[in-house]
Amino acid sequence: MPIRTAAEYIESLRGRKLRVYLFGELIDEPVDHPIIRPSINAVADTYQLAEEEPELATASSKLTGQRVNRFLQVTQDANDVVMQNRMQRKLGQRTGTCFQRCVGMDAINSMFSVTFDIDKANGTPDGTGYHARFNEFVKHMQRENFVVGGAMTDPKGDRGKAPHEQADPDMFLRVVERRADGVVLRGAKAHQTGCINSHWLLVMPTMRLSEQDRDYAICAAIPVDHPGITYVYGRQSCDTRAMEDTDIDTGNDKFGGQEAMIIFEDVFVPYSHVFMDGEWQFAASLVERFTAYHRRSYVCKTGLGDVIIGAAATIADYNGVAKASHIRDKLVEMTHLNETIYGAGIAASHESKPTSAGNYQCDEMLANVCKHNVTRFPYELSRLAQDLAGGLMVTLPSDADFKNPTTGPLLQKYLAGRPGVSVDNRRRVLRLIENMTMGRNAVGYLTESMHGAGSPQAQRVQIARMADFEGKKRLAKKLAGVKDDE
Amino acid sequence: MPIRTAAEYIESLRGRKLRVYLFGELIDEPVDHPIIRPSINAVADTYQLAEEEPELATASSKLTGQRVNRFLQVTQDANDVVMQNRMQRKLGQRTGTCFQRCVGMDAINSMFSVTFDIDKANGTPDGTGYHARFNEFVKHMQRENFVVGGAMTDPKGDRGKAPHEQADPDMFLRVVERRADGVVLRGAKAHQTGCINSHWLLVMPTMRLSEQDRDYAICAAIPVDHPGITYVYGRQSCDTRAMEDTDIDTGNDKFGGQEAMIIFEDVFVPYSHVFMDGEWQFAASLVERFTAYHRRSYVCKTGLGDVIIGAAATIADYNGVAKASHIRDKLVEMTHLNETIYGAGIAASHESKPTSAGNYQCDEMLANVCKHNVTRFPYELSRLAQDLAGGLMVTLPSDADFKNPTTGPLLQKYLAGRPGVSVDNRRRVLRLIENMTMGRNAVGYLTESMHGAGSPQAQRVQIARMADFEGKKRLAKKLAGVKDDE
Amino acid sequence: MPIRTAAEYIESLRGRKLRVYLFGELIDEPVDHPIIRPSINAVADTYQLAEEEPELATASSKLTGQRVNRFLQVTQDANDVVMQNRMQRKLGQRTGTCFQRCVGMDAINSMFSVTFDIDKANGTPDGTGYHARFNEFVKHMQRENFVVGGAMTDPKGDRGKAPHEQADPDMFLRVVERRADGVVLRGAKAHQTGCINSHWLLVMPTMRLSEQDRDYAICAAIPVDHPGITYVYGRQSCDTRAMEDTDIDTGNDKFGGQEAMIIFEDVFVPYSHVFMDGEWQFAASLVERFTAYHRRSYVCKTGLGDVIIGAAATIADYNGVAKASHIRDKLVEMTHLNETIYGAGIAASHESKPTSAGNYQCDEMLANVCKHNVTRFPYELSRLAQDLAGGLMVTLPSDADFKNPTTGPLLQKYLAGRPGVSVDNRRRVLRLIENMTMGRNAVGYLTESMHGAGSPQAQRVQIARMADFEGKKRLAKKLAGVKDDE
Amino acid sequence: MPIRTAAEYIESLRGRKLRVYLFGELIDEPVDHPIIRPSINAVADTYQLAEEEPELATASSKLTGQRVNRFLQVTQDANDVVMQNRMQRKLGQRTGTCFQRCVGMDAINSMFSVTFDIDKANGTPDGTGYHARFNEFVKHMQRENFVVGGAMTDPKGDRGKAPHEQADPDMFLRVVERRADGVVLRGAKAHQTGCINSHWLLVMPTMRLSEQDRDYAICAAIPVDHPGITYVYGRQSCDTRAMEDTDIDTGNDKFGGQEAMIIFEDVFVPYSHVFMDGEWQFAASLVERFTAYHRRSYVCKTGLGDVIIGAAATIADYNGVAKASHIRDKLVEMTHLNETIYGAGIAASHESKPTSAGNYQCDEMLANVCKHNVTRFPYELSRLAQDLAGGLMVTLPSDADFKNPTTGPLLQKYLAGRPGVSVDNRRRVLRLIENMTMGRNAVGYLTESMHGAGSPQAQRVQIARMADFEGKKRLAKKLAGVKDDE
Repeated sequence: MPIRTAAEYIESLRGRKLRVYLFGELIDEPVDHPIIRPSINAVADTYQLAEEEPELATASSKLTGQRVNRFLQVTQDANDVVMQNRMQRKLGQRTGTCFQRCVGMDAINSMFSVTFDIDKANGTPDGTGYHARFNEFVKHMQRENFVVGGAMTDPKGDRGKAPHEQADPDMFLRVVERRADGVVLRGAKAHQTGCINSHWLLVMPTMRLSEQDRDYAICAAIPVDHPGITYVYGRQSCDTRAMEDTDIDTGNDKFGGQEAMIIFEDVFVPYSHVFMDGEWQFAASLVERFTAYHRRSYVCKTGLGDVIIGAAATIADYNGVAKASHIRDKLVEMTHLNETIYGAGIAASHESKPTSAGNYQCDEMLANVCKHNVTRFPYELSRLAQDLAGGLMVTLPSDADFKNPTTGPLLQKYLAGRPGVSVDNRRRVLRLIENMTMGRNAVGYLTESMHGAGSPQAQRVQIARMADFEGKKRLAKKLAGVKDDE
Repeated sequence: MPIRTAAEYIESLRGRKLRVYLFGELIDEPVDHPIIRPSINAVADTYQLAEEEPELATASSKLTGQRVNRFLQVTQDANDVVMQNRMQRKLGQRTGTCFQRCVGMDAINSMFSVTFDIDKANGTPDGTGYHARFNEFVKHMQRENFVVGGAMTDPKGDRGKAPHEQADPDMFLRVVERRADGVVLRGAKAHQTGCINSHWLLVMPTMRLSEQDRDYAICAAIPVDHPGITYVYGRQSCDTRAMEDTDIDTGNDKFGGQEAMIIFEDVFVPYSHVFMDGEWQFAASLVERFTAYHRRSYVCKTGLGDVIIGAAATIADYNGVAKASHIRDKLVEMTHLNETIYGAGIAASHESKPTSAGNYQCDEMLANVCKHNVTRFPYELSRLAQDLAGGLMVTLPSDADFKNPTTGPLLQKYLAGRPGVSVDNRRRVLRLIENMTMGRNAVGYLTESMHGAGSPQAQRVQIARMADFEGKKRLAKKLAGVKDDE
Repeated sequence: MPIRTAAEYIESLRGRKLRVYLFGELIDEPVDHPIIRPSINAVADTYQLAEEEPELATASSKLTGQRVNRFLQVTQDANDVVMQNRMQRKLGQRTGTCFQRCVGMDAINSMFSVTFDIDKANGTPDGTGYHARFNEFVKHMQRENFVVGGAMTDPKGDRGKAPHEQADPDMFLRVVERRADGVVLRGAKAHQTGCINSHWLLVMPTMRLSEQDRDYAICAAIPVDHPGITYVYGRQSCDTRAMEDTDIDTGNDKFGGQEAMIIFEDVFVPYSHVFMDGEWQFAASLVERFTAYHRRSYVCKTGLGDVIIGAAATIADYNGVAKASHIRDKLVEMTHLNETIYGAGIAASHESKPTSAGNYQCDEMLANVCKHNVTRFPYELSRLAQDLAGGLMVTLPSDADFKNPTTGPLLQKYLAGRPGVSVDNRRRVLRLIENMTMGRNAVGYLTESMHGAGSPQAQRVQIARMADFEGKKRLAKKLAGVKDDE
Repeated sequence: MPIRTAAEYIESLRGRKLRVYLFGELIDEPVDHPIIRPSINAVADTYQLAEEEPELATASSKLTGQRVNRFLQVTQDANDVVMQNRMQRKLGQRTGTCFQRCVGMDAINSMFSVTFDIDKANGTPDGTGYHARFNEFVKHMQRENFVVGGAMTDPKGDRGKAPHEQADPDMFLRVVERRADGVVLRGAKAHQTGCINSHWLLVMPTMRLSEQDRDYAICAAIPVDHPGITYVYGRQSCDTRAMEDTDIDTGNDKFGGQEAMIIFEDVFVPYSHVFMDGEWQFAASLVERFTAYHRRSYVCKTGLGDVIIGAAATIADYNGVAKASHIRDKLVEMTHLNETIYGAGIAASHESKPTSAGNYQCDEMLANVCKHNVTRFPYELSRLAQDLAGGLMVTLPSDADFKNPTTGPLLQKYLAGRPGVSVDNRRRVLRLIENMTMGRNAVGYLTESMHGAGSPQAQRVQIARMADFEGKKRLAKKLAGVKDDE
């Protein structure tokens, strides 16, 4: 029986045998932990949206012949790729944070074409190889309507060294044993977004590999509560406010992101769920396809951008300065930057081309350009939001002081703004801006925008590769009348 | 017999009864004038491209049932709009300048839907109204394969006043007389790109009008050499180099842009070529549709961007520093900015929606965002190109000094760079960068990028209108938990 | 007996009758509160520096004839103003946060000349008026070596209204009663930096006043623990980490800033400590002089900039990528921006001119330019620091997880970087960058940089006033050969 | 008899035996050439200013005991260095272009200390060595009030090779023969600012040299019209407009810059005017000192910035939009950027320290920061000026069309703006902005700002050297509590 609603999704997470550590303690039930719950709510909203706007958040799957959550869809045309972006922006607007399902979606689409290519290169007959197994896995996920977490980033150890050269060979996830019925994995994945809120993990190599790295060329699907897996929760700015008695100081009380480290201590995976095992030649194209999808997936941040623009516009309104030309101008600049990100992202999706496997892959140059702007503009939007917020955002006393019978009335008296605006509403909006620019969701809106799907320099390397400087030089030389060039 | 080739196009321009003034003189034959000719060559290349790449630069017209030059096509689906951008970039790459036909293309598409809307509002039966007349005009242009120049910008006089309030009522083009068979027009159009290289002009109002501006609400088609029309050529930086005995100092010897002022001294237009006459209510939507198309048409500048990136890469290579990391990084930055423009532009086209008249109109927000980036990034690309060029770009002696038997050999000796690079090729590339950043094509690459299709503030006004700040405020308030907001 | 050392300073704060609220509770002894203590340590370091580098952090006072802490010095020449900046940068480097004494220093210097001007305007004989009283107050502070907190910013209520127009007249601090021996004050001061760590407060009006605002034109000195004063501590991002059992997750365990709201409930001040009472005409020049000094005082942020550059350079080193050209280039860019701030600030100080009272006032244009860059560049330095830090900064588990016997060894294993770098040192530097870019000291490094001493628009207004556009127009017209201009 | 006035200066240039080539022709008398004359006028204005404001533009020389032109002064205290900046800004404001004397001024001050150091290292007794000879030379210049052109930049040939490694050994100026009474020089100097308008040239090596480059380690003074010297004039954007019959289209009709290549064909220099000959070890410090001075000398561009801000403010006024908030805001931004440059420059001068020779050397970090901002901000000022100018700047017909009896009245009619503004004045200001952003003085305002005194990367290298990253790392590590760092 598939998961149908947000409530069912949340219920589905209860009672798993997960080993999750947070603040030095083994968590009994993550679903009920006040720090973890907002991140679960964010994923749950992907189910909610599918119910509310099925055209947007579900798609017709050729694999199952049924309507499936769009996060599980293998893209069947350019429109499918475009619709991902529209859904991402909407979810960003609804949650104001990272809703954690894009890695899985992008991993499914990359794996779909790469397993096809491996099979083809191997001459493996259809139906018996990786691609067929992978399709079975995807169908399973679609039928159950599960959340799939993509797990790519290894800890990497000494950055100057290849996986096989590391002092500790476990610094990249690897096969430590091959049995008749499956493989045994050891290692870790760092910076794992939403893994604890997933049902299955899809592990993949993190970079180009060489022949000597053969044991690191492993792709596989694993249930999140498989024996041998440990999660250590990453702490975030202001995380403990969720444990205070307040729904104001949290800024965005309902939604949050999640980052954790996953440690695999000799985890067994049956071959039915292995989709690459030693084909090191395909690691590079897997990473490239994944990052192309995923860099354009950062269009989600324009949804968060809509929220921060709205928060900035609201606080300007509450402060009684909404009509000042410089305030208006800053809101326009924020909008312009936000839409510039969106333009490059949605363009990358529109310009999708079919792979040999038949699904659609977005334009790589524009996807990188989109992400590269994401490493810049949200920081400027944050700066402008802080400008409009005013200094009170960082000098506001705690909610507890507002509740205290001595200080509460004094604060209410002295923090009153223009007529018609309650001090509490003003606080709420200030705390939301704090949340997104230096608090818990600043992790998702800023730092994840910087490093997710590759740090800025990774995009520059890709942009350089696709820039065709030689072609551009020919254009210039022709117009300049260059003759007999060497 | 339609024009079929670039050569035929150039031939078609000879012998017209144009009154063109340049440097205080009435020009005998513009086609043969060394300053004007490069701008004609640029338009001719649009014919050349149609021959070389018909898929790109022609389209199947429903109106005539034939394949027509894409600059004359009424867009029939979103792909038609997207293909305009691809063609524009390609022509920018081929000419390194403004090829002058986009205004006409965008005017045709705006007029197509606005004439339809006027007819509909007027209850005019199909076949007798503006839309039908306009379609006939377009068919005529398509059959003859003519160049149509769109003429929108009036001189405007005192900016604080409406057309009917001006001290001199001719500061906006207007109907001064209505006869039985047509109207008589007086006024001028400023900053007219490529008008002298066109066969027909399509005049349109330049801004929102009120009822009192009724006589200014005029759209009409006029042959360029109609009696009563005078052209005064605008001068451009370094324009007279085209009259020197050199093909090097010109930078881009073959191609250039063209700006002129057109003065209408009581020009008669028969009603068959009048497409709006007094319907002031539709001036605003005509301008908005036109600017939406045209702001996205500035994707052409990414073609020029490709040339300037190529020129910068070439000069870095000639200077022997192409592998320096900071050089490489600047080329990447130039590419990133250039593609950011492209992303927003092509996205605006992909997101086109049908009008009630049936042609396709691009997304207005993304079109404005595209153009707004065009008012910024080409300047930064120019700055970076000047950085890579080195100071020699502005201290290089004239070509005449290189031809002088005394100084020529000295200059050849002392300006030699790394082995294998001729001094002349180095000069050619430096002069191309000079041409695009401060010379003749800087007009097209920079200042036109700033002001064409509306100055930056015009985009900000449009972005503000479409930003839906109220909707964004609701998003923020919901997440912040704002209660009982006034 | 004056305070001589950092330890004596801290001791001097004990046992005061302060009413300080934090997290809804009345604090028993602020000195021992883990959240408050780091802010006290930062102020204490100003005493420490005076001991270690007396040339830098003390000055010879004409008033007392003795060497006094530079924060209490009335500037006697331009060098005194310059030395303030040098001291500020050094303290920023030492503490990585706001050390809270600049407001008092700048208030003393502004009040010095404004009291002189009021006396002069009033024809008050020297020795009996405000200036003489103020000098006595300063001498007292110098002799005791006290910390003076300047209190300027009122809550302001409805921003569109003047003090006397507010629905609640207490929205700006005001005289509610004039007695024979002194005045009674009511109101509040918001965003008060370091007030709880001061010995005396110097209250001043926050903006230009009109005659009807006469009761708001009040300057006075008040001991911090005067009856009727209540402090409510402002909460900051990640503030509660100081209460956790960790010296790592705090990022900067020793030093922090402090913001509080001060509420005055009918506080009596004897005339001996009143330095303006009703002279509303002088409020504007007091604010202008204060902001000129204080905007240039933001040179302190270049000291914090040095720390964040150092932290970014360290983490690049720990990550084994310090030699990558793009890493190096980002460190250079950070340095360039940081020194650009410093240049404008130190220039403003060097260009100081004597006031009629004899002390030295910095250049107003350059001071505003300095601060305006401070509202931009620290954000870009933060962005670049986050770039260099890598994603681990926001996914790193808590210190408690490192101490846990199960997860600790796993984390140590998998977070190992290049040889020779301990995981703990890596964590420490990452937490410092988190602290400065989104944690507790981001308040001081970013938001305070935005809003302290006036928000960006306040500087733009001042820059416009001093820009002398008319003079610049004359320069241009002369060169252009403009004739008979209206 | 020294030169006392601008008129005498111009007269002093007549009748020299200069070999100057321009547009392939040997120029008879440069003073009377319409392209060259504006550059002479700019230098003449340095004499004019000395007459009008002697406190600003002259100084008391210890060498001669007399008041001398400040461009010839050996700086005697920090104020002398500061006053250079003030004078430079003023001359930038008066001329709107490069007035060409800074290289000489900065060369004199660098040579002063370096000749002292060489003597000291050589143990040469005072009076007989380089320093004494150099002082004699400076005294001669001061007494005659001559213009000294500093000539540093060699053509450099293959950038990857040292002087002695070049295929053609003449690619750097060198000693080809040593005679009993002097040396013979061969080579060239490129990008020479104002050389033709000078009386003497001071040649210096352009970069760090090694022992094998000994013959390139040559500093010497040479009269500009010495036998064997040839000048080839560099062409500039729009240079030939100076030869048209117009004082409007030139934009800045009176003043311009000058760049030329100087070729030395076996030029003899007596030892009395040789100040370095073979001391290759001192080439690096000479270059470093010179560039430190000279990078800060780019404060002159803030004078040009004042002009372009004034021009932008004027055209906004003429266009009737001066009060629009976005226009005002752009003028403020231009001012802010311009003053940011000034701040770093004047700070570098204020922070000057004495050399061992006794003159004052500016702060190297701030000088580099100043120049680095100069490679960015004037481009942004230009972009904003073009924004405010409107498109007419590049579509305006030529002055000849305004003089033509047919088109003149039409243009006057249709280009009328708001009442009270003449079309001619509007044209004049537009042409001035064109002149500074893409015309003749764009060379000085933009490209020279980029490359003069070293290209951007040269500043970044210096900033990196002085950044003390190790010291900054220590600051960060201390605050982070880093322990037992390797």
